[in-house]
Amino acid sequence: MVTPTRESISTESFATENTPQNMKSIVMRDGSIHLETQPVPEPGPGQVLVKTLACGICGSDLHLTNHSDEVFDLYKKLGMMPADDSVKPEIMLGHEYSAEVVAYGPETKATLPVGSRVTSIPVLMSQQGAAIGVTPEVPGAYSEYFLLDEALMLALPEHLPAQAAAVTEPLAVGLHSVKRSGISADEVALVAGCGPIGLSVIAALRARGVGHIIASDPRASGRARALAMGAHEAVDPTAEDEVAKAASVAGASRLVIFECVGIHQLLNGFIQRAPVNACLVVTGVHTAESKVNFAYGLVKELDIKFSYMCTAEDFAECLQQLASGEINWRVLWTGKVGIDGVSAAFETLTQPNSHVKVLVEPWRTGALEAVE
Amino acid sequence: MVTPTRESISTESFATENTPQNMKSIVMRDGSIHLETQPVPEPGPGQVLVKTLACGICGSDLHLTNHSDEVFDLYKKLGMMPADDSVKPEIMLGHEYSAEVVAYGPETKATLPVGSRVTSIPVLMSQQGAAIGVTPEVPGAYSEYFLLDEALMLALPEHLPAQAAAVTEPLAVGLHSVKRSGISADEVALVAGCGPIGLSVIAALRARGVGHIIASDPRASGRARALAMGAHEAVDPTAEDEVAKAASVAGASRLVIFECVGIHQLLNGFIQRAPVNACLVVTGVHTAESKVNFAYGLVKELDIKFSYMCTAEDFAECLQQLASGEINWRVLWTGKVGIDGVSAAFETLTQPNSHVKVLVEPWRTGALEAVE
Repeated sequence: MVTPTRESISTESFATENTPQNMKSIVMRDGSIHLETQPVPEPGPGQVLVKTLACGICGSDLHLTNHSDEVFDLYKKLGMMPADDSVKPEIMLGHEYSAEVVAYGPETKATLPVGSRVTSIPVLMSQQGAAIGVTPEVPGAYSEYFLLDEALMLALPEHLPAQAAAVTEPLAVGLHSVKRSGISADEVALVAGCGPIGLSVIAALRARGVGHIIASDPRASGRARALAMGAHEAVDPTAEDEVAKAASVAGASRLVIFECVGIHQLLNGFIQRAPVNACLVVTGVHTAESKVNFAYGLVKELDIKFSYMCTAEDFAECLQQLASGEINWRVLWTGKVGIDGVSAAFETLTQPNSHVKVLVEPWRTGALEAVE
Repeated sequence: MVTPTRESISTESFATENTPQNMKSIVMRDGSIHLETQPVPEPGPGQVLVKTLACGICGSDLHLTNHSDEVFDLYKKLGMMPADDSVKPEIMLGHEYSAEVVAYGPETKATLPVGSRVTSIPVLMSQQGAAIGVTPEVPGAYSEYFLLDEALMLALPEHLPAQAAAVTEPLAVGLHSVKRSGISADEVALVAGCGPIGLSVIAALRARGVGHIIASDPRASGRARALAMGAHEAVDPTAEDEVAKAASVAGASRLVIFECVGIHQLLNGFIQRAPVNACLVVTGVHTAESKVNFAYGLVKELDIKFSYMCTAEDFAECLQQLASGEINWRVLWTGKVGIDGVSAAFETLTQPNSHVKVLVEPWRTGALEAVE
């Protein structure tokens, strides 16, 4: 452990960095994406100013934007923002990132040199555990600069591309949901939805040795990626009943259904079609009221487990898997966009599309383009 | 094991029993209770004709009756009755019973003498696993006679009253839900609703050594019974937020909420108020659509576990606990009624009341009366 020098922890050291006063930033407000100029945030005690290298666009970012009234209403009910109007209903998006250390705030140890490439779980313990990139008044990683906790920061392995590190978070969310399910190798998994989380769930199931992973996606591209990520078969739920198929494969084994779609109207269908003793793991963000007939859950004694986040351990485990080459992360990465292209990219991604993970590179300009 | 004689397994032996051709029976049809004369059922292979000693009125019997259209619709969707009109939408109610062996059907071993007092889980494996007393075309135990599987039949310990044995089933349903929850002794339980299942859950939690059991019921009588059954405290949910209270007691421990109320509109409230990482065990029968905002389940990573039935092991365990005097079963028993009083008793029990378990004694007549 390095003992911090006065230089490394003084605010003077921050002031002397070669950092501009202002930056380009993406702010979600009134259900729209705004490209704005904001002051570069100043790291508080225990915090580090970092420069974004790449930041994934998450399905939850689209949901936050397209249902912002619903989301802010929920945040108020959950105590995640004050019930009055003292906090502006706007979010600086971006919570799946890799970044570069720029400057250390006070009460830090400066364990990694300035310029080091880093990532972390999107939480500021130094700010009452606020979530980076999804809650108001916390800088997000679609912006040129944002803040991390030194205590949560992990250095990237030298050979790991910044783009790979930016998908650590969705991989860890997938791993977390697999751990939540408690699935064992001889049980059967149905992964409904082959977006970033669905594919991450498949990667985690494969790493766990689950012997039969059935992926389901109406898009041929989604099914192809599921197979590339390690699913044993991939079905089109518009052509056949994916739950009935998985239940027949499972037989007397427990079936675990991973809902990775994020369309709340589908939940009742999974509950109605799930076989006896099945487990439904809900990972999609649903903020509207769903209509559900729980009788189906009851007579079949289902388990419904909600999985939302990842722990620091899940995150570190996935970064390690990326470093060791165990996970074919390029299956996840389908596009990149400069900071001035984010708003249009959101429009594209809200419509039916074959993208998985689009990475924002806020240090440059440019429209959404596909990568191979 | 006794080798069956030809006499014991012949249908002649059944015909020679001192059994009338017809019996009084309770049939639920068109949302009402009907007292009718029906033929005494004839035991098929592996089955035993028994005479009801006592049969509990279950909350699910009230639900089946008061929501019969909804229930038959669901049964059809679940394949529990044909989708066409080939099976009459009527149920001979009664699934919590003690009974006396009258006659053995073919392919039985007659291991217990005629006249033996018995009980069992309410299932006929000999009839494709049909549930006794809740599905059409299966005789139920509100009637003078009904059928059991010999293979599932358990003899009552000699000193155990028939009334005690009749509450084995709700006790086992409570035990099953506690097992489903996986609650450990250092976690905290909130039991919402102190009817038969809530009280049975409390008994099972106490037997498991759970250190803090909070019961919740708007009725003073329910709270008093919860304390008599072993709850550590009992709160009135109309006077204070029982979930907030339980969450504050739980602190960093997991809170397990047992929903034993059966009012589907309450489920969303439990999901909204449950603390982070809580487990909600749903035991109430809910056949109507509920409106639920799953966002609350998601951000708090709740588990929702449905618990509906009991296994033969749960049942045998509870019968053993009753025999050993471990469970104060008299807390559950609050009333008795003759066969001609069932319809009026249903009316009474559908209104707010302070009964827990009313036992039907189909071998006699008489209106609902309280017991102490």
